[in-house]
Amino acid sequence: MIDSLQQTFLRHLQDSSLPSTPAALYDPVDYILHLGGKRIRPLLTLMAAEAAGADLEQALPAARAIEVFHNFSLVHDDIMDEAPLRRGKATVHEKWDSNTAILSGDVMLVLAYEALNAYPSPLFKSLTQLFSKTAREVCEGQQYDMDFPQQAAVSHAQYLEMIRLKTAVLLGCALQMGAMIGGLSSQESQPFYDYGILLGLAFQLQDDYLDAFGDPATFGKQVGGDIIENKKTMLYILTMEKGTASVKRQLRDWCSQQAADPSEKVAAVKALFKAAKADRAIQSLIKEYTDNALSKVTLFPIEEQQKDRFRKFAQALMERQL
Amino acid sequence: MIDSLQQTFLRHLQDSSLPSTPAALYDPVDYILHLGGKRIRPLLTLMAAEAAGADLEQALPAARAIEVFHNFSLVHDDIMDEAPLRRGKATVHEKWDSNTAILSGDVMLVLAYEALNAYPSPLFKSLTQLFSKTAREVCEGQQYDMDFPQQAAVSHAQYLEMIRLKTAVLLGCALQMGAMIGGLSSQESQPFYDYGILLGLAFQLQDDYLDAFGDPATFGKQVGGDIIENKKTMLYILTMEKGTASVKRQLRDWCSQQAADPSEKVAAVKALFKAAKADRAIQSLIKEYTDNALSKVTLFPIEEQQKDRFRKFAQALMERQL
Repeated sequence: MIDSLQQTFLRHLQDSSLPSTPAALYDPVDYILHLGGKRIRPLLTLMAAEAAGADLEQALPAARAIEVFHNFSLVHDDIMDEAPLRRGKATVHEKWDSNTAILSGDVMLVLAYEALNAYPSPLFKSLTQLFSKTAREVCEGQQYDMDFPQQAAVSHAQYLEMIRLKTAVLLGCALQMGAMIGGLSSQESQPFYDYGILLGLAFQLQDDYLDAFGDPATFGKQVGGDIIENKKTMLYILTMEKGTASVKRQLRDWCSQQAADPSEKVAAVKALFKAAKADRAIQSLIKEYTDNALSKVTLFPIEEQQKDRFRKFAQALMERQL
Repeated sequence: MIDSLQQTFLRHLQDSSLPSTPAALYDPVDYILHLGGKRIRPLLTLMAAEAAGADLEQALPAARAIEVFHNFSLVHDDIMDEAPLRRGKATVHEKWDSNTAILSGDVMLVLAYEALNAYPSPLFKSLTQLFSKTAREVCEGQQYDMDFPQQAAVSHAQYLEMIRLKTAVLLGCALQMGAMIGGLSSQESQPFYDYGILLGLAFQLQDDYLDAFGDPATFGKQVGGDIIENKKTMLYILTMEKGTASVKRQLRDWCSQQAADPSEKVAAVKALFKAAKADRAIQSLIKEYTDNALSKVTLFPIEEQQKDRFRKFAQALMERQL
């Protein structure tokens, strides 16, 4: 089912031709949009639209708006993070240059808005307003993420707010847009949004967990990457909340320097996370957010048999089976 | 009259408060929006709206959308051009850094769209669609401008298309949005758009002229700046079209190097422009576009006495009296 939706989306993306000139502007857009990826966000739009009774066709432009926006944010984030690779391929600013990545990113943000032109007037406004609010919040989340390294301490609440803005709201938006295209009002579609937020938080927290404790064979990224980069993830924050004075001091020491031997540092920091039981604490948080996401599905104003799909999706996502 | 509209707009801009956090995201937005400037684009929106019968109040959010978008494009263009100064003050990427300028620029593009949320549904869609098309074209214009230095030759037509996209369409959009807010249909408001395009082209060509032949005392920028930077402006293009083989060869030589003595280069290149009569040719072009802009005013579906304002505006703009 999910595979078939993904195929439908990819066909639509392929068929939605970009302007051909200036090539230097649109070639990078084409490049990043076809670099692969799991296409989770557009999938959510399509699933919600179908569940709410829309034809799949109707939801495709909104799904594309979400995916183009997501890729815009990747292109600009990759410049800011000086990331050389994205999905195993050269990032846009590496393959071309920073100026190209800035401008091609800009035009992608506009193209995302333009994809919504497909919708008739009152729906167009609801979708565009939600989309703008979400886009603004994603920028705010990225800013908080950039602010954290300069900040003496990051609280649990500040961290959750950052990942809500940077990651979760776009999942919520993808789902709610689909539900609205299916004819649900802004209020009726709210549980879809909430489900997306909670699932996004659970997913991001799990990403933090897997970055330290995941299986290098199946986790997509370098295990220990956050530790090596001194990132203040939820594991760090929980350890600073729950650890003994000695554990906290050692963690602060490790995370205020570049280690000569990264694997020694990863092992030491993981031991500190475990000493403070941060590994178990984050797993309870992940379970709590996943359960809360599932409880939102019960509130969807759709037929019972349709709801299972969203439960299965949550399960597959959290088991990294997508 | 124009002064009073500018005051009204500045009060509105002052009153439209930005989100306060994250400060690192919104402080640069506040900074660039209050750096001054002639506010020509929002002024055009207000003038067109009033002429078409709208209350000034109704047009203020659209005028703000246009001004915020214009400033977004300045922030990102200044990164790409590595410009240290904007309106005599430090550019955003200089005062903060490039990452800040990228992200604060991004959120400005979203804030520009959000300003349009003030409009009811069918009008919202017409305005947003026109705005998106314009925003995309401005990106395309910036790309062509960035492409030109790498291009062996730039034709007259290519140059005009570049300045149409980079500069003129935003004036057209500002005017047409105002006219639509005043209740004119997309077709009825077309002459407003056309007037903006033609005036924008005339203005930009005059900018090229003044950059070489303007009075240093009154021209806002460094006279000769385009020549020193080897920019292929319309004076260059006309000289390559109309000059003798010797003039063309000398111009090509001067413009393929950084001169040891910039004032010697400026004097020599200006002499070549004059030898090819490019100075006179560009002045005919400027007159032609200005006259064509004025002829569009005749087509405005508004009362005769209202039209004079747009004629006077064109005159004041071209005499650099704004």
